[in-house]
Amino acid sequence: MPTSVPRYDLETLLRDDVPYGDLTTEALGIGAAPGQMQFVARDRMVLALAEEAAALIALTGCKVDLLAASGKVLENGSPILRAEGAAAGLLRSWKVAQTLIEIWSGVATEAQAIVRAARTVNPDIAVACTRKNVPGAKQFAVAAVKAGGAIMHRLGLSETILVFPEHRAFLGDMPLAAVAERLRRSAPEKRLVIEVTSIEQAVAAAVAGFDVIQAEKFPAADIEALVRRVGAMAALQIRPIIAAAGGVNAQNAAAYAAAGADLLVTSAPYLARPCDVQVRITPASAAA
Amino acid sequence: MPTSVPRYDLETLLRDDVPYGDLTTEALGIGAAPGQMQFVARDRMVLALAEEAAALIALTGCKVDLLAASGKVLENGSPILRAEGAAAGLLRSWKVAQTLIEIWSGVATEAQAIVRAARTVNPDIAVACTRKNVPGAKQFAVAAVKAGGAIMHRLGLSETILVFPEHRAFLGDMPLAAVAERLRRSAPEKRLVIEVTSIEQAVAAAVAGFDVIQAEKFPAADIEALVRRVGAMAALQIRPIIAAAGGVNAQNAAAYAAAGADLLVTSAPYLARPCDVQVRITPASAAA
Amino acid sequence: MPTSVPRYDLETLLRDDVPYGDLTTEALGIGAAPGQMQFVARDRMVLALAEEAAALIALTGCKVDLLAASGKVLENGSPILRAEGAAAGLLRSWKVAQTLIEIWSGVATEAQAIVRAARTVNPDIAVACTRKNVPGAKQFAVAAVKAGGAIMHRLGLSETILVFPEHRAFLGDMPLAAVAERLRRSAPEKRLVIEVTSIEQAVAAAVAGFDVIQAEKFPAADIEALVRRVGAMAALQIRPIIAAAGGVNAQNAAAYAAAGADLLVTSAPYLARPCDVQVRITPASAAA
Amino acid sequence: MPTSVPRYDLETLLRDDVPYGDLTTEALGIGAAPGQMQFVARDRMVLALAEEAAALIALTGCKVDLLAASGKVLENGSPILRAEGAAAGLLRSWKVAQTLIEIWSGVATEAQAIVRAARTVNPDIAVACTRKNVPGAKQFAVAAVKAGGAIMHRLGLSETILVFPEHRAFLGDMPLAAVAERLRRSAPEKRLVIEVTSIEQAVAAAVAGFDVIQAEKFPAADIEALVRRVGAMAALQIRPIIAAAGGVNAQNAAAYAAAGADLLVTSAPYLARPCDVQVRITPASAAA
Amino acid sequence: MPTSVPRYDLETLLRDDVPYGDLTTEALGIGAAPGQMQFVARDRMVLALAEEAAALIALTGCKVDLLAASGKVLENGSPILRAEGAAAGLLRSWKVAQTLIEIWSGVATEAQAIVRAARTVNPDIAVACTRKNVPGAKQFAVAAVKAGGAIMHRLGLSETILVFPEHRAFLGDMPLAAVAERLRRSAPEKRLVIEVTSIEQAVAAAVAGFDVIQAEKFPAADIEALVRRVGAMAALQIRPIIAAAGGVNAQNAAAYAAAGADLLVTSAPYLARPCDVQVRITPASAAA
Amino acid sequence: MPTSVPRYDLETLLRDDVPYGDLTTEALGIGAAPGQMQFVARDRMVLALAEEAAALIALTGCKVDLLAASGKVLENGSPILRAEGAAAGLLRSWKVAQTLIEIWSGVATEAQAIVRAARTVNPDIAVACTRKNVPGAKQFAVAAVKAGGAIMHRLGLSETILVFPEHRAFLGDMPLAAVAERLRRSAPEKRLVIEVTSIEQAVAAAVAGFDVIQAEKFPAADIEALVRRVGAMAALQIRPIIAAAGGVNAQNAAAYAAAGADLLVTSAPYLARPCDVQVRITPASAAA
Repeated sequence: MPTSVPRYDLETLLRDDVPYGDLTTEALGIGAAPGQMQFVARDRMVLALAEEAAALIALTGCKVDLLAASGKVLENGSPILRAEGAAAGLLRSWKVAQTLIEIWSGVATEAQAIVRAARTVNPDIAVACTRKNVPGAKQFAVAAVKAGGAIMHRLGLSETILVFPEHRAFLGDMPLAAVAERLRRSAPEKRLVIEVTSIEQAVAAAVAGFDVIQAEKFPAADIEALVRRVGAMAALQIRPIIAAAGGVNAQNAAAYAAAGADLLVTSAPYLARPCDVQVRITPASAAA
Repeated sequence: MPTSVPRYDLETLLRDDVPYGDLTTEALGIGAAPGQMQFVARDRMVLALAEEAAALIALTGCKVDLLAASGKVLENGSPILRAEGAAAGLLRSWKVAQTLIEIWSGVATEAQAIVRAARTVNPDIAVACTRKNVPGAKQFAVAAVKAGGAIMHRLGLSETILVFPEHRAFLGDMPLAAVAERLRRSAPEKRLVIEVTSIEQAVAAAVAGFDVIQAEKFPAADIEALVRRVGAMAALQIRPIIAAAGGVNAQNAAAYAAAGADLLVTSAPYLARPCDVQVRITPASAAA
Repeated sequence: MPTSVPRYDLETLLRDDVPYGDLTTEALGIGAAPGQMQFVARDRMVLALAEEAAALIALTGCKVDLLAASGKVLENGSPILRAEGAAAGLLRSWKVAQTLIEIWSGVATEAQAIVRAARTVNPDIAVACTRKNVPGAKQFAVAAVKAGGAIMHRLGLSETILVFPEHRAFLGDMPLAAVAERLRRSAPEKRLVIEVTSIEQAVAAAVAGFDVIQAEKFPAADIEALVRRVGAMAALQIRPIIAAAGGVNAQNAAAYAAAGADLLVTSAPYLARPCDVQVRITPASAAA
Repeated sequence: MPTSVPRYDLETLLRDDVPYGDLTTEALGIGAAPGQMQFVARDRMVLALAEEAAALIALTGCKVDLLAASGKVLENGSPILRAEGAAAGLLRSWKVAQTLIEIWSGVATEAQAIVRAARTVNPDIAVACTRKNVPGAKQFAVAAVKAGGAIMHRLGLSETILVFPEHRAFLGDMPLAAVAERLRRSAPEKRLVIEVTSIEQAVAAAVAGFDVIQAEKFPAADIEALVRRVGAMAALQIRPIIAAAGGVNAQNAAAYAAAGADLLVTSAPYLARPCDVQVRITPASAAA
Repeated sequence: MPTSVPRYDLETLLRDDVPYGDLTTEALGIGAAPGQMQFVARDRMVLALAEEAAALIALTGCKVDLLAASGKVLENGSPILRAEGAAAGLLRSWKVAQTLIEIWSGVATEAQAIVRAARTVNPDIAVACTRKNVPGAKQFAVAAVKAGGAIMHRLGLSETILVFPEHRAFLGDMPLAAVAERLRRSAPEKRLVIEVTSIEQAVAAAVAGFDVIQAEKFPAADIEALVRRVGAMAALQIRPIIAAAGGVNAQNAAAYAAAGADLLVTSAPYLARPCDVQVRITPASAAA
Repeated sequence: MPTSVPRYDLETLLRDDVPYGDLTTEALGIGAAPGQMQFVARDRMVLALAEEAAALIALTGCKVDLLAASGKVLENGSPILRAEGAAAGLLRSWKVAQTLIEIWSGVATEAQAIVRAARTVNPDIAVACTRKNVPGAKQFAVAAVKAGGAIMHRLGLSETILVFPEHRAFLGDMPLAAVAERLRRSAPEKRLVIEVTSIEQAVAAAVAGFDVIQAEKFPAADIEALVRRVGAMAALQIRPIIAAAGGVNAQNAAAYAAAGADLLVTSAPYLARPCDVQVRITPASAAA
């Protein structure tokens, strides 16, 4: 079960929590006792980071069986993983592994909720999550977003073209078509994305040749109006992708999809509550 | 303005977001233009990680004035920081710095809400946050918790004694007093904390000599009953600290304080919504 | 002078070369003597990594004036930087700083040669460098490629869609249009790139809706034929970008541009010889 | 198959290329399909970094059989390694592993070409490569140099004594014998190496007691003259090693060896073209 | 055999000693020969870091059997571990593994000597080691201290309350009871520790409510006087722990225990001489 | 004041001790108070790591004046450094900076004691310290050894040739001259060092052509005998360096020097007691 996260980073998570041994377990003198640990879903949830949690437990010398893969939808009571080994290893890895799954499964579950809501209306729509994840946790965030069936809007600033009004402030009165032209020459293998805050700006961006119009905080009705207007423009060689962004969530995703958005851009999954994973740790004798 | 986070970790945050340059800014050719950036609170909020955000912006060569310190309560419109420098630096550091403040100020704000709610009733009560933060972000979480006026319950497993039922499962039928005695001998400079799930267990733990009784998911009424019972026990050399844990939040904190808890243990701040920080970026000429 | 590389990575370069002090300088006992160091171009060259070299020298406590920015074209004799400080610092940073500039300016120079050759024919053509750089040196490679006026084809596997025949082998007999459709739904904000090895494949890819046709090892005549054929296809909503890849270099870039390629994809700059930078180190008295 | 490079560094190479998953493979939905991958030499080449490439592929969960060890001379068609596993792992590790072998086998091959050319004349001659490798890639460079049968001239500044004219500039008019004496007292377990740029300087260095005379950019005829002169000096207790440096390559190595140089110091291998490794990736069914 | 130290840190230790291969073994050409290596105690010693040494040897590809666990008391001749593998691996890991065990077993042995001396008098006394270990080696120091049966006094500044006179200098004339009260409110789950340098200060601290009185450089007689005085104070709700600190070692530990100290705080183990571990390396044939 | 240690490593030392803030100082609420801190020698000592300690204190935002350089001999009362800043910074950096100087000045002082003892007899003798330092602390150890006027025997296995009996066990009955010849061809720029345990072995090694004879645990009388014998051998082109190793310390260094050893190899400095550095921390007002 290869992980999306290097072993070194899992070692770091474990060290962050247990830098110099597990004081309670050592003081109790129970570390050598054999035991087992089970992770079971307590909520309906989309599982995430399960491979990483399993690998992290294995770092402590325990044998781990992963019983469900990240991305799977679990019901209350569904098994996630089972570990066997010395109490020292089980107790040392328990909470970090649990927290890793709980927090990121929360994100995956919410991402999937948005995807499902939107796809009820438009089965082809994509949901892209922003990079407003907790700084320092990007690789976990990306894994959770994907587990939920969503995609990443941008990984960062190095691999996408997205023009904000803040960029345009430094461009003086350069016409938008010239901006698009400059970008296309500089980055011919990238789609050109631009954030707009009004229908007029959106239309201008479409005319200028941008590939993706990221409509920031448009009500669904405005998205609909925009889609209609852009669809009617004979001059456009190709219809740009209309992305609804800003405040998109599981409640309004269907409305945006119905309005004709091709893509939803959202940070909502990062606000999700952690899912609840039950952990049962028992001595080996008790388990027999 | 020293930070609680090493420079290396701030470099890592920036690199996570901009590993190979800011493609849009470079393609637009605007990087060398001088500009300024202001961060202003849009919500009432307890500021957190502001020193780190400022230091991160400074890594890009910009000059930064920090206008409010972490821990300060800001109102809508309160200035946070102001930076000057090349557009390349401003645009490169913008979102990471903003996200860092927004997410962790959310945590600080919620932590403080719990502290305030509890202290309305008992000015001496403490609020301790658990280690159920996003794995990998502990140093930011701790800084935010402190900014909010709360404390950390445990930094991890290496520095505290906290006996869970999962430990006791490996202790067979060892009497609780013997467990406490063993712990006291092994860790005489630590308070002995034990998680209990019933009043009977709590009383037994108090009798056995534990210093802190962590009452897991007790309704406030049960906390009150427990406090009363423990207070009436003449046999106790010293009354243990009663900590209410599990489900504690800003809504019920006052009730728990009124019930007599000495300490509230909570993960609720980590569920907080990010605060809203407005960022204004303008060319130097526009700012003049 | 902010660098594109974090300070930590420059510290690492210096430590790789001088992990435990500069034995010769220490044995000679000359470390404290004040001196100066000048870097001067000995070749015509496109300067690269100069900011990083300057920052690396500054790590040793020397004062550094950068006299030319990366991306600038230098002639034989053009000054690059000037440093002052203790001999210990100058002698410790000398070779790493010099090698950093020499190797990567070689890459930048060759990249620019290809760009210039191609733009003589088509001023709008872009030149994209592959990720076949020395593993472990990506951030330096990207900086050099940009200094030379080229762009990166892909930073890695996480941010671009590029279908190789090796992918198609796992797709069974799925029609190419279905492949493109699947990709477009999964990654609507990305251009779809596909590598083809014959004109027929290229035409099929264009028909299937790929955005960029990466023609691998096509002679210029075949590129020309392909451009003509694709241009004549009325069915195409938008003409795909034709990228010539495989064996593209400064000698044949103009021919490919003349053949109508929109984009050249090349690894040739990584094969460039290092440029020659003369370093003069003198005692402060001699410099007076 | 232990590697010369720590696992952490291999994880870093992989993460540099695939920080957040393989977008194309994921979008195509082919990651779980079983497959196999073979690396085969397409050129005559001295293999290098093969153990590291194999270990890197294994990081992705594939099973790898290494079929040839680094240092071995391969012919066109010689197998290098064979991997089996999920398409996700094969496609994720493919290019980094390939590039690692191609680039560094190029260096090893050129290093061996120089060694062979020189040893045709003098079977005892050594070829030492400089530290002018790509900064940040020293451990790979050293492994490749050794695979080619050459040695490292210096690993860096901390472990060797090599006096450059730039050092002497800080020594005023100290006689060379006094310089050597100072060095010998400070570093009695090191050979004393000095760079010279004329026969007169070389002779003076020999008389002063340096152990290795590094003759910088001497034509072979000058090396021969130097060897003759030094050989005839009755005053020398022991003949110093004569090292030819500066511009040494496979073309002139035999001439330098014939001229009597004991050691060739060269950066030429770092300028070598990568070797060509063919990679064949096929679904498991196709392979059956 | 899980280690208390992450694999990455063991890789770092090995790389610190052998960054670019084992020159002698390579030059001799003996690396591929099979051999075995045995570690045997030459002193009576408390074994420490044996799991880490074994794991480090295993990093080089050798098969390792650990024959004694850290914490065990060994006599002259007791086996520690046995490794088999290529000479390259044995010779590469030998000295680092040996030094790791020798130095830290020295610390463990001295820690245990203090523990034993003190427990002869008071079987319940604890011995806590300070954080005056070699900076950068904390995880090894902690492991050794625990192997010796002692505990850590503090891991650092983030997890304990210890008031030094240097803190009090910044508190003006705040009464000690107010200081204790402030600390208790801020850190209710921590014992309050204070360093005192006279009996009067100690008594005042006890009255003020500190939990642990760290008596710095008290002669045993003063500890005895303090214990008597504090024991006689009816006003104390609970008798504070009396810790003897400063100059405590194996020679005087029994005296401090006899004087009534509850806890000894010592840096003496860090001054211990390394233990002597004999390493026998033999070719596989010789071993047969 | 450039340091021999990268900033990152100093950040790491500080983080090891204070990963999440200074709990006591924060709980006391005194962090913002201005203060000053002075480091003064309490012993006669050779100062080491002072630049690093100063830089580490400066990381916390304090202003630091270094009053003595590493390598200087201090008397009781000599000032080392003076820092000014917020109490938070002073109290956070205090102990790590102090411990760094104390431990490594102890090593430097002992190293110098051996150097002085030996040079009383032979002013040209060198003292080389082994690599038996605390694993993980090599860069500090090397800096301290140099501060004491000694040199490093080996930095590790990658840069020196030192044949142990353990190597020879894998060489079968290869004559020693053949071993030396093989080494010389493989590593012509290195001196060949060999460890011997008897005079006969030493003589054989000299005859075989080794450059340095490392006489392991020879009594001084045996060194003298060896020196005499080797000196009388007309057959030797050049007399090898005789290094006394194993048990060399300040007490016997003069005897070994008198016996004619050219070089002393010792681990004794690593066993030295830390020096005593007095630290005075006072509020700014008190200092006025």
